[in-house]
Amino acid sequence: MRMRHKKNLDDRLAKCDGILFKIMCEDRNFSTTINEKEYFDFEKIFGNSNEVHMEIGCGKGQFIAEIAERNPDINYIAVEKTADVIVLACEKVLEKGLKNVFFVKGSAEYLPKYIPEGSIGRIYLNFSCPFPKAKYAKHRLTHAYFLNIYRPLLAEGAEIHQKTDNMHFFEFSIEQFSQEGWLIKNVSLDLHNSDFEGNIVTEYEHRFSSMGQPIYRLEASITNLA
Amino acid sequence: MRMRHKKNLDDRLAKCDGILFKIMCEDRNFSTTINEKEYFDFEKIFGNSNEVHMEIGCGKGQFIAEIAERNPDINYIAVEKTADVIVLACEKVLEKGLKNVFFVKGSAEYLPKYIPEGSIGRIYLNFSCPFPKAKYAKHRLTHAYFLNIYRPLLAEGAEIHQKTDNMHFFEFSIEQFSQEGWLIKNVSLDLHNSDFEGNIVTEYEHRFSSMGQPIYRLEASITNLA
Repeated sequence: MRMRHKKNLDDRLAKCDGILFKIMCEDRNFSTTINEKEYFDFEKIFGNSNEVHMEIGCGKGQFIAEIAERNPDINYIAVEKTADVIVLACEKVLEKGLKNVFFVKGSAEYLPKYIPEGSIGRIYLNFSCPFPKAKYAKHRLTHAYFLNIYRPLLAEGAEIHQKTDNMHFFEFSIEQFSQEGWLIKNVSLDLHNSDFEGNIVTEYEHRFSSMGQPIYRLEASITNLA
Repeated sequence: MRMRHKKNLDDRLAKCDGILFKIMCEDRNFSTTINEKEYFDFEKIFGNSNEVHMEIGCGKGQFIAEIAERNPDINYIAVEKTADVIVLACEKVLEKGLKNVFFVKGSAEYLPKYIPEGSIGRIYLNFSCPFPKAKYAKHRLTHAYFLNIYRPLLAEGAEIHQKTDNMHFFEFSIEQFSQEGWLIKNVSLDLHNSDFEGNIVTEYEHRFSSMGQPIYRLEASITNLA
């Protein structure tokens, strides 16, 4: 289901300007564009040199707003493709007055143009679109294609934390992480009935979990930097 | 629940002598014993040089008898600790007249004394005891301790195929395989509702699956030989 186009979207996005960067180069030649680095200056953006974590696919921002509020000493980059959705996330963060979240509107493929190598301490993938059809597998955010995009951006010892309600996507993710040489730990095949503490339940997660759907979760770390 | 001691167990085991080897050294000093190699001669045992697969924890032998019948060109070693149980497995194989199954009664820890290095093409772990209590984790057949016992016995490209109905044991197994450098593939979090073909359903598996319990399955391969 497509969301209805938000009212006054441009006006509302304009109000988020201070915490939102829009990737505008997506119609240019990818391989040229990606190599013309325009690295973010995190110290300038956040006003400090705290560790930076990133959520890819932040949706309406419930997770990022809550985790950022709980962890004021960590900076967060929240990435989302859809304007209709990221605007809600930005508004949530502005409303809470959080200073440690910065939004990037655009596709994850373009992150290496903006994110300095080795600068990210953790990536969150929460309920990413599972793209169930095999022919769209390459769009899944845990496909080897994306894992190899993330890898150089990560600091030593960095982890990806993934949650999903989609069983086949989780099976696929375990296989991709493993085959690409990531180490998997803290696997949960039923997060809400596990002893995992401090879980931030997103709206989406609450809806599916309350329908009896188990929530799957894992952590993966890189074995060696490329 | 302990099984009742089988009637005439010794007589019945004696009839299986031709296809059954009993590890008798388990009360001696482990590290000395394990290094005094008494390698099986598979060509002599099976009368051919076909590939050898192994099931560890064969129980009453339903799986091994069926897979051996389906694959006459593969030889099978079936390992089981409990005399009461292995006798049933041996009798099944004798009854079917299978010539490609050889049983080993004893603990998996002693296998490196008898199994030549690099000689096993596949290991099956079917519904191994999950040892739910953390303090018994080392007894789980996918604990790093056991993975490092199996590793030298395996031929290049060999795989472990695991099935279990126990969710936490499966979570644990994924983590152990991954952390020990094995590559995981063909993960199924609900085998009986997946498109996996040729599954051999054991009695145990049938019982738990028919209670609505999902069956978990994975394949793991070694990345490099020690």
